[in-house]
Amino acid sequence: MLAMMRLLLIAALVLRAAPAADYLPVPVSVAPAQGSLIIDQSFSVAITGYQDPRTRAAASRMLDRLSAKTGMPLPSAGRGSSPAALRIECAGPGEQDESYRLEIAPGGARLSAPQPLGILRGLETFLQAVEPAPRGFSAAAVTIEDRPRFVWRGLLIDSARHFLPLEVIKRNLDGMAAVKMNVLHWHLTDDQGFRVEVKSLPRLHQAASDGLYYTQEQIREIIAYARDRGIRVIPEFEMPGHATAILTAFPELASAPGPYTLERRWGIFDPTIDPTREEVYRFLDTFLGEMSGLFPEPYIHIGGDEVNGKQWNASPRIQAFMKQRGWTDNHALQAYFNQRVQGILKKHGKRMMGWDEIFHPSLPKDILIHSWRGQKSLAASARQGYQGILSFGYYLDHMQTAAFHYQVDPMAGDAAALTPEEQARILGGEACMWAEYVTPETIDSRIWPRAAAVAERLWSPAHVKDAASLYRRLDGVARDLEWLGLRHRSGLRPMLQRLAGSSDVDALEVLVRAVEPVKLYGRSSSGDYTSFTPLNRLVDAARPESDAAREFPRDRRQARERLARWSGNHARLTPAIDRSFLLAEVRPLSEDFSAVAQAGVEAIDFLVNRRRPPQAWLDAQLALLDRAARPRAEVTLAIVAPVRTLVEEAGRIRERVRRAP
Amino acid sequence: MLAMMRLLLIAALVLRAAPAADYLPVPVSVAPAQGSLIIDQSFSVAITGYQDPRTRAAASRMLDRLSAKTGMPLPSAGRGSSPAALRIECAGPGEQDESYRLEIAPGGARLSAPQPLGILRGLETFLQAVEPAPRGFSAAAVTIEDRPRFVWRGLLIDSARHFLPLEVIKRNLDGMAAVKMNVLHWHLTDDQGFRVEVKSLPRLHQAASDGLYYTQEQIREIIAYARDRGIRVIPEFEMPGHATAILTAFPELASAPGPYTLERRWGIFDPTIDPTREEVYRFLDTFLGEMSGLFPEPYIHIGGDEVNGKQWNASPRIQAFMKQRGWTDNHALQAYFNQRVQGILKKHGKRMMGWDEIFHPSLPKDILIHSWRGQKSLAASARQGYQGILSFGYYLDHMQTAAFHYQVDPMAGDAAALTPEEQARILGGEACMWAEYVTPETIDSRIWPRAAAVAERLWSPAHVKDAASLYRRLDGVARDLEWLGLRHRSGLRPMLQRLAGSSDVDALEVLVRAVEPVKLYGRSSSGDYTSFTPLNRLVDAARPESDAAREFPRDRRQARERLARWSGNHARLTPAIDRSFLLAEVRPLSEDFSAVAQAGVEAIDFLVNRRRPPQAWLDAQLALLDRAARPRAEVTLAIVAPVRTLVEEAGRIRERVRRAP
Repeated sequence: MLAMMRLLLIAALVLRAAPAADYLPVPVSVAPAQGSLIIDQSFSVAITGYQDPRTRAAASRMLDRLSAKTGMPLPSAGRGSSPAALRIECAGPGEQDESYRLEIAPGGARLSAPQPLGILRGLETFLQAVEPAPRGFSAAAVTIEDRPRFVWRGLLIDSARHFLPLEVIKRNLDGMAAVKMNVLHWHLTDDQGFRVEVKSLPRLHQAASDGLYYTQEQIREIIAYARDRGIRVIPEFEMPGHATAILTAFPELASAPGPYTLERRWGIFDPTIDPTREEVYRFLDTFLGEMSGLFPEPYIHIGGDEVNGKQWNASPRIQAFMKQRGWTDNHALQAYFNQRVQGILKKHGKRMMGWDEIFHPSLPKDILIHSWRGQKSLAASARQGYQGILSFGYYLDHMQTAAFHYQVDPMAGDAAALTPEEQARILGGEACMWAEYVTPETIDSRIWPRAAAVAERLWSPAHVKDAASLYRRLDGVARDLEWLGLRHRSGLRPMLQRLAGSSDVDALEVLVRAVEPVKLYGRSSSGDYTSFTPLNRLVDAARPESDAAREFPRDRRQARERLARWSGNHARLTPAIDRSFLLAEVRPLSEDFSAVAQAGVEAIDFLVNRRRPPQAWLDAQLALLDRAARPRAEVTLAIVAPVRTLVEEAGRIRERVRRAP
Repeated sequence: MLAMMRLLLIAALVLRAAPAADYLPVPVSVAPAQGSLIIDQSFSVAITGYQDPRTRAAASRMLDRLSAKTGMPLPSAGRGSSPAALRIECAGPGEQDESYRLEIAPGGARLSAPQPLGILRGLETFLQAVEPAPRGFSAAAVTIEDRPRFVWRGLLIDSARHFLPLEVIKRNLDGMAAVKMNVLHWHLTDDQGFRVEVKSLPRLHQAASDGLYYTQEQIREIIAYARDRGIRVIPEFEMPGHATAILTAFPELASAPGPYTLERRWGIFDPTIDPTREEVYRFLDTFLGEMSGLFPEPYIHIGGDEVNGKQWNASPRIQAFMKQRGWTDNHALQAYFNQRVQGILKKHGKRMMGWDEIFHPSLPKDILIHSWRGQKSLAASARQGYQGILSFGYYLDHMQTAAFHYQVDPMAGDAAALTPEEQARILGGEACMWAEYVTPETIDSRIWPRAAAVAERLWSPAHVKDAASLYRRLDGVARDLEWLGLRHRSGLRPMLQRLAGSSDVDALEVLVRAVEPVKLYGRSSSGDYTSFTPLNRLVDAARPESDAAREFPRDRRQARERLARWSGNHARLTPAIDRSFLLAEVRPLSEDFSAVAQAGVEAIDFLVNRRRPPQAWLDAQLALLDRAARPRAEVTLAIVAPVRTLVEEAGRIRERVRRAP
């Protein structure tokens, strides 16, 4: 009997299901099974069924990435030993269906999909499954059925405010594909620059880009690179506002006399295209005609947001034009402009897309509303028959937490009350990386890994919303994305080394990990920024979200140990601060960091000894915490909150009356 | 009087010379002056005098790197505000003179040189001068006169054992230029692969490379890239030994019947070209003729080392050939081969270069001896009129310390006794990166920063040899090289993450920083390695030199703190070890690491309390240290040495006799 039990126990140990991999986004259905597939150097891939060049290229890239992830040289796709460890079967052609089925068993894996895009998505899932395990690199046995909740899962990248070289776009496309995003919304023009070569109107890129623009060959290279990864590229050309760059090249199209020069600051500016001039539409016909040939997707995004109307209000001619037509507000004039633009786009075989402001009943139902205003605005247009996507709550430049973005759902709020037919008009959403405060050096850390939270929201079933699980899985994604060449992690140390010069950066890293950049529009409030302002400060190195604060230990011994180390950090950092002008602004912050940590140490000592702190101590600490919570150097001390909890807890101690000995 | 003194004091504070930058290599003469040049966004460069495309390109690259180093957008070369902060003056054309003069003053900097190469070297020095300071990025005022001690300052990169993609070669050329190295010795063929396209003999790259070779277009791209940085590219084609790849393609050239296949293991192998066959020289005429057109430098390196002679000894035909000529040893046969090869090279306008073994009085004096054997061998050939360079003591794959390489001087030993005329024949040296145990992922950390120690030995005056100063400056160079795209630092974390899978890597990083890969040929002794063996273990992640051991604190309180943290490291690392097969071999090492650290803690406690440890404790610790000093998992625990010092010191305590209380 005992022997039998021992046997059963051994069997259970051998046969137990391996822990499920940390898939992100979470698939629709994950059924773990027994055992796991060992990935060794004999691993190979075979592709059967419909042959699409993209599935073959994707399998080959997957092998390269598997080789990088494992450090094992592997044979190329289809050239490995037979039978293949991963068999890929694509049923047929098509560009819509992203669903796939992935079965991993100890004897091999099988990935099948109705169309090529499903294969691409499934390969990402397979790669996520591979982890080092006690018997080798392996993928836990599982059967996965998967398909996206929304068809539109985008990332907006703003190349206008800071120009981003091709390799930045490419590595971020790799990142997008890894988390199954499928739309790159490329913000190519704004007040600060016009970033695309226009052969029929070369003044645009020549006079309004500081020489920083993409050639059409480069644009095509990006489109092909994206398509290879199952990503569509939608360009945005802002009009009639955010158009200073266009008007720098063509001042005659403006609503007020020029000349104009590229805007160097951030914000909403007056220069606006004049909707009353016929030459505007001739210009747009030429411009959008050429762009319609360059970008293959059916949509062109025309922006349309934040028209402040000042030039329109000040122009007697424009006012007369409106009066003649009985229009009393600028929105009507903008709607007229949009109708004309929509007609031009239609002529060139394109559909119009724009921000909330373009919504107007005079426009046809095939336009797409992109909402920065929220689900209420989205629902209102959906009720009137318009399709839309959400970006409200997905602004990565706001420096919110991953958990914040994660809880924003396109189908929440007013959208939840829509009929199923109306809801079907809500196609998805886009994370937005506005680039006022990012450079090629910092952009990866602003996009990743937080964009992956949006990717999961838009792919996974609505009920998937456990933030703790998200953070655990984000960590794995953040690690894997670095293999793709993204620098959201590896970029930190060099920036710290720049700040500290020849000083050691360990103490600086401790500080930077305890702070967060100011959120929302906190950074722009200083008003001092221009396109040329160096983004080389502590705030630029700081991650949007402090892991040190979020993962602050609950265990008091651990917490005390950490706080004690932090309390000595300022002394260690002082020599570097003394030496580098870039760190001068950090001094009060660093002082407070260590002081706050010391308050935490003392609070824990009161708590552990169950000794009530003197009121004077309490008052002093709370005052310190209030002061330390205020932003300095455009960052906030993220560890103030957990320390405040400790101090307040200490303040609630009811001391047991001690008996006289 | 007091006011006067205060005034003088202030003046002294304002005018004191800024600390000298940590130049590497140390220039011939450095005269610090008062004040410093502030580098802000108005910084620009002007070039006067002789215009060479390389000086303009180098100035432009310097501005890009300055922009990266400072995080400040900067105007391009020659386009900035006037007057330029850095004026460059090149006197005239030429390819020999690398000397330059750099004056930095608060009002501006001036770099002058007789020839373009001096400008290139001086720009690197200028860039090293820039550091963040209290008033901004600045370069301390100084006058530098500089020129190299040796004309040949090379790095050998072996692309045969592991193929290295173009970008790996390029970023290492950038690194070489940064420390003023001027020769890339490119080891392109060996038993394991033939890595260059040969159009007249395509079987070479087609049949003997596994598809991993450089096209001639790529070779030309590298040559141009190197030339732009003042670096010459010398190719090496190994013959008559280390020739398995050549004989895989052309077995009819071998000294024994084929067929041959690419060697997958490391070592010295039998396949050798047959010097007695005339078709060998027809083949070499075609091959070396084409290569002479491809590589512009006057030298071609023909290897010539490690001919084991087995095939020659076993061939009756070859033995008869030798007997007929009265040769009794293989060296004579190889000398005959080399004479023939030298004749072919001469016909194609090239000079022969090869390892010590090619040295033979029958060869003309224009060949160049490359010594892996040492200064004695080098001196012997110099005495007979042959030029030479040194690589003995500069093998980076031996995993020696930077200090070890640093103390090796081409003019030491027998070379020190040469006449000045003979000494002039010793042209310099080369650091060698043999690639049996490196991949594109790990090679940077094997080359950098240690190659910079060799670079300084070959550039700076002989009296510059303070290892402590070297290490301080290496740290700055290591930091700056990462801006060039080298990954010797940033590559570590991803490798640790691979090893640890989803586990946290902090504890693993602590361990890896306390170990060093086994030195010399320790790794090959297992004999298990092939070209395909994954290099993804702890030993591959470990840096050649443990900073944690070298910088072990002398201060006992600091040392105890560190040791105490390390003593708990094994417990923190255990979960990751349990989970990952790649870490299984690390378990005993990790146990010993923490046990050794604990021994150090206890030793310090004895020392601090001046209490003599019990003999049993001493015996146990010394046994532990002996065991822990032995290599495991192909690494050694570098911290054993400093802990042994502590334990032995504790063992020498003579306890003061305590008086009874």
